Amino acid sequence: MSEFDLIRRLQEIISTGPGSSVIGIGDDAAVLAVPPDRHLVVTTDTLVEGVHFRPEMPAMDLGHKALAVNLSDLAAMGAEPAWFFLALTVPAVDSAWLDSFAEGMAKLAEYAGIELAGGDTTAGPLSVTITALGLVESGQALTRNGAQEGDLVAVSGVLGEAAFAGKSLDGGTTPDATARRALDHPMPRLSLGRCLRELATSCIDLSDGLLADLGHILHASGKGAEIELERLPGADCLDDLEETDRLQLQTAGGDDYELCFTIPPDRASELELIAEKSGIGLTVIGKITASQELLCKTPDGAVYLPPGKGYEHFTGGSQ
Amino acid sequence: MSEFDLIRRLQEIISTGPGSSVIGIGDDAAVLAVPPDRHLVVTTDTLVEGVHFRPEMPAMDLGHKALAVNLSDLAAMGAEPAWFFLALTVPAVDSAWLDSFAEGMAKLAEYAGIELAGGDTTAGPLSVTITALGLVESGQALTRNGAQEGDLVAVSGVLGEAAFAGKSLDGGTTPDATARRALDHPMPRLSLGRCLRELATSCIDLSDGLLADLGHILHASGKGAEIELERLPGADCLDDLEETDRLQLQTAGGDDYELCFTIPPDRASELELIAEKSGIGLTVIGKITASQELLCKTPDGAVYLPPGKGYEHFTGGSQ
Repeated sequence: MSEFDLIRRLQEIISTGPGSSVIGIGDDAAVLAVPPDRHLVVTTDTLVEGVHFRPEMPAMDLGHKALAVNLSDLAAMGAEPAWFFLALTVPAVDSAWLDSFAEGMAKLAEYAGIELAGGDTTAGPLSVTITALGLVESGQALTRNGAQEGDLVAVSGVLGEAAFAGKSLDGGTTPDATARRALDHPMPRLSLGRCLRELATSCIDLSDGLLADLGHILHASGKGAEIELERLPGADCLDDLEETDRLQLQTAGGDDYELCFTIPPDRASELELIAEKSGIGLTVIGKITASQELLCKTPDGAVYLPPGKGYEHFTGGSQ
Repeated sequence: MSEFDLIRRLQEIISTGPGSSVIGIGDDAAVLAVPPDRHLVVTTDTLVEGVHFRPEMPAMDLGHKALAVNLSDLAAMGAEPAWFFLALTVPAVDSAWLDSFAEGMAKLAEYAGIELAGGDTTAGPLSVTITALGLVESGQALTRNGAQEGDLVAVSGVLGEAAFAGKSLDGGTTPDATARRALDHPMPRLSLGRCLRELATSCIDLSDGLLADLGHILHASGKGAEIELERLPGADCLDDLEETDRLQLQTAGGDDYELCFTIPPDRASELELIAEKSGIGLTVIGKITASQELLCKTPDGAVYLPPGKGYEHFTGGSQ
């Protein structure tokens, strides 16, 4: 199968209707029309075998996740998904694997309403790089730098579930299906991101762990935060863990792909409505301070000192 | 060095002035403003160590070439370079290597007037994926599908020089500096692409070899072509080769990064002016026919049957 055929085959599977590209796959580049009242939002993320995913990860999950982590960045900006470009490097052409990979990606692409507009396939060690393009009303993109003193800090969903699954697999045990799904099949919080455009003062997606990612908001906003650890939403699978282990997974496990955001304190009542509208649980976990420090407090008022500072990859992540 | 630091460091080196992004590196995604009268042109290309470049390729050349092959696609569409996104996978953080890589990329970015607007760095086997975004007046992008019967087929520069260098290195001999530069340091034909917007009926960049790439134009346009082999522009380094070897490199060597395009026969006189304006030699090598066949003729009128059909990677290339 030639490279041209391969991209065509992926395109056949990953087809989300007629598409909105002016020129899609099959020329030297895609040609796209951005509506005049919209800004373009662009992100790129790579998943490398053995670094970001296990060699035995099912192809369908990999296809899903490679797109999901990019869509999560678009969600964090409050952008509507529009087009994506797939750079796929595989050691050999395995049709069954490719079909499954494409199917996993196609399902999510259809759900998100995003069109595969181009790509490149090469031979080499397995890795997937996706560049996703979204649209947002000009000037309305959610950013990291708008947190104000007194703002409430909130997160979506639960924290530490994917990291628990990853740790279990690393240790040779099989995590329960819910945790495993959190790890292999994260759902980008697109509808939540949309709802937050009018409300949040800052927003980021949680890929590297709560403390590391909230740290980016604080750094960009020139602020600090106080987090109440007993408020952190935890998954059921964490219930039986020692507190230290649980906190480590919740604050620094990474791979959550939830949104962390700040809102003005007088608009806290709107969170419930948004949780209902987006179908995702939202939890206030603390508040923004002027201190430029990130303090985590236990219920007895003691300061929690995290052992690490999150999934500090130079082993992956977003820009 | 964290991933965040690494992208910042690359950004510091690859800085082409204040940039035109609304939000550049440092948020979940970049935010870009596309002028209302412009279409967006997007391409993505990956270079994998051992597949697209030799492990001993100097980092500075790799930085240049990874961007150049993407800019070549923008050139073939007649687009103006605007922004690019760099997904870099490296086995380890080697500051000297990274500085050199970034420097090679930065020089070309400055020349082309393109801004590094985001990226992702990961650990893993060495590979570089770039997604380049360009702009073109709406409806003015050069495509592959407009060749008409009777149009002249032309190419820029010389053919087979880079492939000669690649073959020499594979065989353990050192090619001359000019050939080596063609292989490691191709210059994207951006000014030529710009000039061709008003003239060419179709255009493609030569990455996989003349016959394979011209084949894409013919397939997209539903036409054929007759090529006169003695007209193919050859580099000096090919002079001493057997004719079969020379023709193989010129028609199927790949890695030329020249433009191949078609123009109406009554506008042939404009080529000289464009060659002067863009500073690149242009050569008419044949004409478009209605036959849907690609015929190569030797000076005595015999038909040349190429041994292969170009650098048929499933080992790399563009969409």
